[in-house]
Amino acid sequence: MCLISSATNIAYLTGFHGSAGLLLQSGDAEFLILDGRYTLGAVEAQVRGDVAPVSIEPVETTYDAALAGLIGRLGAGRITFEPEHVSVSVLGRWQALVPGEWHGPGDLVEPLRLIKDASEIAIFRRAGVALVGVAARLTEWVRAGRTEREVAADIVRGLDDAGFSRPAFDTIVASGPNSALPHARPGDRRLSGGDLVVLDFGGVLDGYCVDLTRMAAVGRLGDEAVGLFRAVRSAQQAALDVIRAGVSTGTVDAAARQVLAAQGLGAAFVHGTGHGLGLEVHEAPRLSRVSGPEDLLRSGMVCTVEPGAYVAGVGGVRLEDDVLVTDTGGEVLTPGPRDLITV
Amino acid sequence: MCLISSATNIAYLTGFHGSAGLLLQSGDAEFLILDGRYTLGAVEAQVRGDVAPVSIEPVETTYDAALAGLIGRLGAGRITFEPEHVSVSVLGRWQALVPGEWHGPGDLVEPLRLIKDASEIAIFRRAGVALVGVAARLTEWVRAGRTEREVAADIVRGLDDAGFSRPAFDTIVASGPNSALPHARPGDRRLSGGDLVVLDFGGVLDGYCVDLTRMAAVGRLGDEAVGLFRAVRSAQQAALDVIRAGVSTGTVDAAARQVLAAQGLGAAFVHGTGHGLGLEVHEAPRLSRVSGPEDLLRSGMVCTVEPGAYVAGVGGVRLEDDVLVTDTGGEVLTPGPRDLITV
Repeated sequence: MCLISSATNIAYLTGFHGSAGLLLQSGDAEFLILDGRYTLGAVEAQVRGDVAPVSIEPVETTYDAALAGLIGRLGAGRITFEPEHVSVSVLGRWQALVPGEWHGPGDLVEPLRLIKDASEIAIFRRAGVALVGVAARLTEWVRAGRTEREVAADIVRGLDDAGFSRPAFDTIVASGPNSALPHARPGDRRLSGGDLVVLDFGGVLDGYCVDLTRMAAVGRLGDEAVGLFRAVRSAQQAALDVIRAGVSTGTVDAAARQVLAAQGLGAAFVHGTGHGLGLEVHEAPRLSRVSGPEDLLRSGMVCTVEPGAYVAGVGGVRLEDDVLVTDTGGEVLTPGPRDLITV
Repeated sequence: MCLISSATNIAYLTGFHGSAGLLLQSGDAEFLILDGRYTLGAVEAQVRGDVAPVSIEPVETTYDAALAGLIGRLGAGRITFEPEHVSVSVLGRWQALVPGEWHGPGDLVEPLRLIKDASEIAIFRRAGVALVGVAARLTEWVRAGRTEREVAADIVRGLDDAGFSRPAFDTIVASGPNSALPHARPGDRRLSGGDLVVLDFGGVLDGYCVDLTRMAAVGRLGDEAVGLFRAVRSAQQAALDVIRAGVSTGTVDAAARQVLAAQGLGAAFVHGTGHGLGLEVHEAPRLSRVSGPEDLLRSGMVCTVEPGAYVAGVGGVRLEDDVLVTDTGGEVLTPGPRDLITV
């Protein structure tokens, strides 16, 4: 039997979205163990067809006890679990409670999630267009004198207006010196003349995450900042140009990295070129230097392409789009202008 | 040496907030392993005094390699890790890379986080008052004809207006039949006459989470719904009345549960009475049926008190406040009216 404990993997397999739950697959039978906060909602969702027709097993006291009881009824044997999603503590508790051979060879569900099917791709196309629609409104929100926090709050509202069920992550608005910090959090700094502004935001639509970064300039930029933008735009284009099924993730990363290195910005590119998207905003594949030659892109993968360059004293630039890998290339899911937005 | 891998525990110990990072404590020396997205920001935060003066160890390729390199330099020995926060996969990788005795006896940092110090309590008091201020605006937002999503978006904006850095969790607005689902997500249902509406929201202020639930009624409620509200209000008051240092968490839970059971609502109370608050919105202590007699409240703990009752066909009610445990009782951090908000 097989025990799925990752909430995201349970959502992928059953359609049930919750902060807790365990899915036990035993032969043809599937059992979703849920506590009282979720049982009624799950049954109603099954009636609507939104959750797969698995047996709902209610938790009376604790999840551990419910799991032990269920496995006891089914007959203990070899139990395959998800080693990436089970902590050392939890496995210790399960081993103490449930006799059987606990076996965690590797990811069980992620290989399925890696390749998006037609219905997932349809969601991504809608979500990408919706996100570009939010980006088109940045000129309403980005203005000298406003704080990063105010701009971020407008973007969050824009995501809601565009039909996203929630932001995919904490929106980043990083201006001036803060733009040189790839993971800056929006603060009380007011945008002012000469600022580079990194605007990195995403939304969740029908469960799936999309992610975009656009750049703004407040008034006139210095030459170095303009050069940084141009270099990152070229690097992003170089990466987009090489994407197709069969190319290694490391090749895509290297394409962007070489453009920046050639302009003396190799050390300024301090992160990977991209990450997969799906029910989580960061999932496989990773497009980075540590990709092995065996990490090949496959048709149906969806990932970001987001090189950046960060120079203390000048600022930072990142441009990010979402791409569907196909046999012939990369379909940009977030089509639209990637130009510097001058305000 | 001691290896801290929980991002929240790293934030608690060092002041560094990031999505990645490892903290290695060896004798008097402390090393914060960070990748290039975070190193510059962490050094700047150290200069400002916002991050403790630990040594920043940059990741060149992977965190695993950086960790192995650092432990190699320091000399391998007994490495105590956090078994609740390290997956079976990650421990396997570490054991393969770093010779040494890997030892995971239990939580290392959570016992410290459990008892809030004066500066944390000061933040909680400010955050609680700010959250009650948001609740005071619910009458602006909750109206017949509006969708749950619209009301939730207003609450999120209200949290931002009140100075919270972000919502502490996805805001719940559950109306009519949806109110009977404790963890409903806001949807496109429009509020209408006779609805009970559960409004459960929280914010993060200076890193700390507060959490509140208020109830609204749209127009005139049926007698059963009114009875449900009164029963839950009595149950919450009963729990609040028994809170003080030295009382067991199970006693607090039982106080609320007995009130509901006495009115035939025992089976309708499908979750615990409360949870601890801190850098995370759900942390120790848990106030539930499975608390043992040894789980005693201690002065300086902060927790929610949130009994609820959910009846399909009638609706659901939950009331939630945040409480600081003291030697003499419970200090309500979210003071204000808990009455049914009739709109």
